[in-house]
Amino acid sequence: MTPASLGPGREFDLIRRFLAGAGESSGLPDSVRLGPGDDCAILRVQDLAVSNDISVEGVHFRRDWLGAEEIGYRAAAAALSDLAAMAATPVGVLAALAVHPRDAGDVAAALVNGVRAAAEGVRAVLLGGDTSRSPGPLILDVVVLGTASKPVLRRGARPGDALFVTGDLGGAAAAVRAWRRGDRPDPAARIAFVRPRPRIEEARWLADRDALHALIDLSDGLAGDAGHLAAASGVRIDLDSASIPVHRAAREIATNADDALRLALGGGEDYELCFAAEPATVEPLIDEFTGRFGLRLTRVGTVSEGTGVALDGMISAAAAAGGIGFDHFRETDE
Amino acid sequence: MTPASLGPGREFDLIRRFLAGAGESSGLPDSVRLGPGDDCAILRVQDLAVSNDISVEGVHFRRDWLGAEEIGYRAAAAALSDLAAMAATPVGVLAALAVHPRDAGDVAAALVNGVRAAAEGVRAVLLGGDTSRSPGPLILDVVVLGTASKPVLRRGARPGDALFVTGDLGGAAAAVRAWRRGDRPDPAARIAFVRPRPRIEEARWLADRDALHALIDLSDGLAGDAGHLAAASGVRIDLDSASIPVHRAAREIATNADDALRLALGGGEDYELCFAAEPATVEPLIDEFTGRFGLRLTRVGTVSEGTGVALDGMISAAAAAGGIGFDHFRETDE
Repeated sequence: MTPASLGPGREFDLIRRFLAGAGESSGLPDSVRLGPGDDCAILRVQDLAVSNDISVEGVHFRRDWLGAEEIGYRAAAAALSDLAAMAATPVGVLAALAVHPRDAGDVAAALVNGVRAAAEGVRAVLLGGDTSRSPGPLILDVVVLGTASKPVLRRGARPGDALFVTGDLGGAAAAVRAWRRGDRPDPAARIAFVRPRPRIEEARWLADRDALHALIDLSDGLAGDAGHLAAASGVRIDLDSASIPVHRAAREIATNADDALRLALGGGEDYELCFAAEPATVEPLIDEFTGRFGLRLTRVGTVSEGTGVALDGMISAAAAAGGIGFDHFRETDE
Repeated sequence: MTPASLGPGREFDLIRRFLAGAGESSGLPDSVRLGPGDDCAILRVQDLAVSNDISVEGVHFRRDWLGAEEIGYRAAAAALSDLAAMAATPVGVLAALAVHPRDAGDVAAALVNGVRAAAEGVRAVLLGGDTSRSPGPLILDVVVLGTASKPVLRRGARPGDALFVTGDLGGAAAAVRAWRRGDRPDPAARIAFVRPRPRIEEARWLADRDALHALIDLSDGLAGDAGHLAAASGVRIDLDSASIPVHRAAREIATNADDALRLALGGGEDYELCFAAEPATVEPLIDEFTGRFGLRLTRVGTVSEGTGVALDGMISAAAAAGGIGFDHFRETDE
């Protein structure tokens, strides 16, 4: 009898597969004192940034939309985006996985491979996690750990700042709309939904140039997330609709320009950066940023005294846009 | 319009309730630089111990067995037990919650109150987390963060050590058996299942006396967890059935002595400590330990060269005992 045979069944096979190779073949970075396999992982870090992000089948993704590896990648990328939103540097990832017993083999392995790929894409180590049987939906909670000696918070926006976003907005929402209609999404829109890139390096680069007063990542949609930033900073944010970088696929699937704008403002899950900064600091950096990262950097609004978010000067329009922010408790589809 | 009205609906009400008061009324300890409300929490810790533990309705608990506050408490206590299993000191807790929309109000609030109560019971702060709609089962993933300058691993057991456990074993399994029969569990057994106490102080006390060579918490059952300890340490562990501290409720609900032993060895989820140590170091501490913590400390086995776990010298008996370890992928009940 080997000790392995003592393990009480398939759960342990899954855990072993889950952890197999994590941090072993490639060696562990100095900041990881103990990797997977014990009751806890041990990190040596000065200023730890930590967050988690739960993804639920039927709420955040559907299995007729995404493969298992894609589900794992996307869940981890969404969680890692919270580190980008603090200008933190990733160190490690833990994943909790609940799957139906029929998925305890290849599906679970593919999910974990996706999580690992997203982690390794930003030089983080898969540190372990937990697994369970699920009676129904597939569930993935990804915990991200990083260092942030000078974290950039949501609450630093000041009157006189401008608001900037990276990339194009509404691509993920365009893919979801196509799937809901039973269509194949535009390939670029599908990639925006399936393979969001956590903007880790972009945020670090901007932070190193003192270009960030307040920072958030776009998970709920620009209208909602600008609202979080305004509320945390105690300021008003005015968005300029003409400057919003609407994703080409959102324009193409939209019924008209207003509808495209709704996808960009309210669609959510683009995982781009949104930040407030002095325009005089950021604007000279835009060309270099775009050249370096292949990513647009666009001024989309202004910060002033007051509260709330307005679109083209109209608070009510912003409220309407906010109302279509991504809401996991929304019971009806769009 | 207040900024709050921008939030896209009930999810945000839940998140606000989720985070309400966390770390505000009582102030944050020095190790928490940034509490809930931003994209990440920020901790200042030297040696971070981190783990997570997922609890799924219908697998780890049933709602006709436990109230919502009890579900939250138990999920967090089980996760915090992983910190005890490293002799770590808790700092903070994150929770991910997936609930059906009908539970987004009072049930979610009670779950979070239970998580917070377990955290505060070991002087940890609720640092935030994530929430989602669930299409079906209630799911809770609890992430625990602590400091462990001298973590005690699973892999330090040496030939000549003895194996010890804290408390009584099989109480949680006795409660589950009663519920499955449709009976009310013995009150002490119910408490063992519903209100496990993470053995944080007990582990720290033993570690401070250099009494721990290898340490694990009993989540899978003594047979299975001794197997993990033996495998990690590269040793054989012999358990002595006569010395196992079987919980009174397990003896009472069992059909005979062998059956009671099965509940104690394989039932799991007692969240007591199991450790290997020099008997000459530990035995003089037993009376003081029991006086201080009101908890038994019992020598249950010996460590020698070899592999695997045996019960009363019989490997096959141990394998059988291991086979009834708690298995989340087991599809049939006991």
